[in-house]
Amino acid sequence: MLNKLSAEFFGTFWLVLGGCGSAVIAAAFPDVGIGLLGVAFAFGLTVLTMAYAVGGISGGHFNPAVSLGLAVAGRFDFKDLIPYWIAQVVGAIVAAAVLYLIASGKADFTAGGFASNGYGDLSPGKYGLVAALVTEIVFTAFFIMIILGATSASVPTGFAPIPIGLGLTLIHLVSIPVTNTSVNPARSTGVALFAETAALGQLWLFWFAPLIGAVLGAIIWKSLLSKDSDASVTAAVNAA
Amino acid sequence: MLNKLSAEFFGTFWLVLGGCGSAVIAAAFPDVGIGLLGVAFAFGLTVLTMAYAVGGISGGHFNPAVSLGLAVAGRFDFKDLIPYWIAQVVGAIVAAAVLYLIASGKADFTAGGFASNGYGDLSPGKYGLVAALVTEIVFTAFFIMIILGATSASVPTGFAPIPIGLGLTLIHLVSIPVTNTSVNPARSTGVALFAETAALGQLWLFWFAPLIGAVLGAIIWKSLLSKDSDASVTAAVNAA
Amino acid sequence: MLNKLSAEFFGTFWLVLGGCGSAVIAAAFPDVGIGLLGVAFAFGLTVLTMAYAVGGISGGHFNPAVSLGLAVAGRFDFKDLIPYWIAQVVGAIVAAAVLYLIASGKADFTAGGFASNGYGDLSPGKYGLVAALVTEIVFTAFFIMIILGATSASVPTGFAPIPIGLGLTLIHLVSIPVTNTSVNPARSTGVALFAETAALGQLWLFWFAPLIGAVLGAIIWKSLLSKDSDASVTAAVNAA
Amino acid sequence: MLNKLSAEFFGTFWLVLGGCGSAVIAAAFPDVGIGLLGVAFAFGLTVLTMAYAVGGISGGHFNPAVSLGLAVAGRFDFKDLIPYWIAQVVGAIVAAAVLYLIASGKADFTAGGFASNGYGDLSPGKYGLVAALVTEIVFTAFFIMIILGATSASVPTGFAPIPIGLGLTLIHLVSIPVTNTSVNPARSTGVALFAETAALGQLWLFWFAPLIGAVLGAIIWKSLLSKDSDASVTAAVNAA
Repeated sequence: MLNKLSAEFFGTFWLVLGGCGSAVIAAAFPDVGIGLLGVAFAFGLTVLTMAYAVGGISGGHFNPAVSLGLAVAGRFDFKDLIPYWIAQVVGAIVAAAVLYLIASGKADFTAGGFASNGYGDLSPGKYGLVAALVTEIVFTAFFIMIILGATSASVPTGFAPIPIGLGLTLIHLVSIPVTNTSVNPARSTGVALFAETAALGQLWLFWFAPLIGAVLGAIIWKSLLSKDSDASVTAAVNAA
Repeated sequence: MLNKLSAEFFGTFWLVLGGCGSAVIAAAFPDVGIGLLGVAFAFGLTVLTMAYAVGGISGGHFNPAVSLGLAVAGRFDFKDLIPYWIAQVVGAIVAAAVLYLIASGKADFTAGGFASNGYGDLSPGKYGLVAALVTEIVFTAFFIMIILGATSASVPTGFAPIPIGLGLTLIHLVSIPVTNTSVNPARSTGVALFAETAALGQLWLFWFAPLIGAVLGAIIWKSLLSKDSDASVTAAVNAA
Repeated sequence: MLNKLSAEFFGTFWLVLGGCGSAVIAAAFPDVGIGLLGVAFAFGLTVLTMAYAVGGISGGHFNPAVSLGLAVAGRFDFKDLIPYWIAQVVGAIVAAAVLYLIASGKADFTAGGFASNGYGDLSPGKYGLVAALVTEIVFTAFFIMIILGATSASVPTGFAPIPIGLGLTLIHLVSIPVTNTSVNPARSTGVALFAETAALGQLWLFWFAPLIGAVLGAIIWKSLLSKDSDASVTAAVNAA
Repeated sequence: MLNKLSAEFFGTFWLVLGGCGSAVIAAAFPDVGIGLLGVAFAFGLTVLTMAYAVGGISGGHFNPAVSLGLAVAGRFDFKDLIPYWIAQVVGAIVAAAVLYLIASGKADFTAGGFASNGYGDLSPGKYGLVAALVTEIVFTAFFIMIILGATSASVPTGFAPIPIGLGLTLIHLVSIPVTNTSVNPARSTGVALFAETAALGQLWLFWFAPLIGAVLGAIIWKSLLSKDSDASVTAAVNAA
């Protein structure tokens, strides 16, 4: 169990240092900054790389919503959920601290939003609460469906980190302007602690919506998509 | 069959939410927007991710032209064509509605073209009807050839979603300025319903041209490229 | 042989339509253009996609320099070299014609350089003849080394199109400002015929340098890198 | 051994020519330059391509810090360390000379920083010494962890170059503004020799920090992440 929790700690650390770090340090660098496209690739590549590196150890969740979704889908033991969540959140907080140390190493540094998530006034594009809720729920649901599908028996071993990582890139390509993209409560928590804005006051949404989305994604997968879903529906109909 | 149609519904939903969503929400975000390059990656990654997730269930078409091309090539049963088309179009429409809900969550929202396809005045670069027809036919034909080749016996199982998804990225890298890139009648239909322009009046082209292109691609593959094409040609010559 | 030459025709057609097409149509689109980064991805993805689609048929060269390099390395029969070169050049010319048809479908079109290659006044960054020669020779040599290595026995089947395609992307990321990047005489020939500049007068360099580079890369691979090179050197020393 | 050292020479040559070359030649090209995002992809793709091409020959390190980290982790023989380091540094220097030859082929060329690494006044974003040290140590440590994980028994053969190459891309997406990103003493050495700035005077940090980071990454992997780490800890506790 020690190496599993270490894997989740370092994986989530990497997700926050790499993803949020690219946003804080490089997105708006004058003239040659990486922009939202670069940030989207950074987040996705944190998961792609660490899923290859330690996915064989812990399963490579790096995200409390993913752990919950996998548990609901019967692919992860509920009794390991809280230890995983703790390792993930602690990893995210320590990474945010290291990022703060690096980012503050220039004269004119101000933390500002520090890549935190938000809605309304704290949304990059000033999107409201409903748009934020719908976005985080729907995109987390699809993220779970991608994870469950890419790790199912119909895909040969070894490929899963590619669609999962690049799926997170895709999610960022759409939704950074809305909520700065969470779909991951640990990532939201880590940087909210260092933001100079009211991000902490909005943190509830970035636990609530991704967790709801993850459960929804797992249910859709189990009931409508997995290969035994026809059988399940038949059984349910017969039982009714 | 239920899970096949579910897979096509959710896959096409994801293609429209992710691809068109990136265009509507993030492409022109001030200073750090993802641009046409980001939109091209978004479209491609919707297919790459969902082809891994549910390709083993439905084949992962997410596109009426792809279903037709595969049927013409003998890889898909014609009797399933209409159910697939319905699932794809419904998925695209529902996704466009969800995207509208999210995108309208900011004060100054206007739907405008809403990532719809067009030619002439509705072409992003004001390309005319002939350029639009040639573009949609030729690029759909190559898309089908890539799909047929990447899923043929000469490629080991598991790789196909990479060239297919990134092939769609490539197609967008060239052709967004011409037609805003369709090669997919379902994608065109979903967002045209919400556009404030005359996109619906041009929708015929984005069914006609991709379907023609798909048939053309399937015929080229069968007659000139597949490994038994030499044998076919010999047989045809002998029969003549 | 018919399907092999068809594969080379369509593969090189795709390389020119996708790669040069992205440059002509989308690179400098106002505000959201894909830039040189998008063009680099487009060229690489043409090879990645077609190598998966038809690599099993013809080997997937799409480039006279690649065919020569593979022949020098003993991986391709010299007697097929001229037929392959003809299929490649014809494919490139037809693709350039189709691209011209599409690109001219807007009111203010001028062909200009039409994505042709050049040095001196025709170099995008005004690089001179020596820089152009060195660039085309060195980058083609490494391209051949990547191809020979990625298709050697030490790499499991199925992966090769990824490094080969993305290797071409990388080459463009460096060298577009110098020569607009050729490393492929067929690609240079196709668009030079439609350029309004003096590109045809410089075409010799984009046959000469890539072919020299390909031979150089094949020799380096055979003598210094392939696993039996130690044995070869020992044999050569013993023979001396 | 000759082909191993050749592989390290050409691999590190390619890393410097491709990565630093993209920065010097293409990053700030007017209007359509590739920016830091393009440079990040270029560095990553040098490693992805050459790891496929020659990884089966030498292991594909191309980086003195990687060779050290692998030796500490027990995956590489310490007695080969110095020969590998020499091949890598010589490859980097020769590549920097070739890049200088190409880049100086335009009228208004000035070497300037020549893509060298630095802190303080020589940091692209004027980050100080502590930020530079932390960045280079932490990112090199994670790079080693990705390499050790992706080449461990739990990942099927053939995938490793993807996370390793794209991991280097990710590292650049975050850290170019801080130190211009080294994590590789050979890369730093090659271009520092040609820089017109005081880069050579800061070169010590780009040996010191990556080497420390590599050792740290190897220790973390061995003690906390690899599958036998629980057993190691148990043994250590029992021994205590």
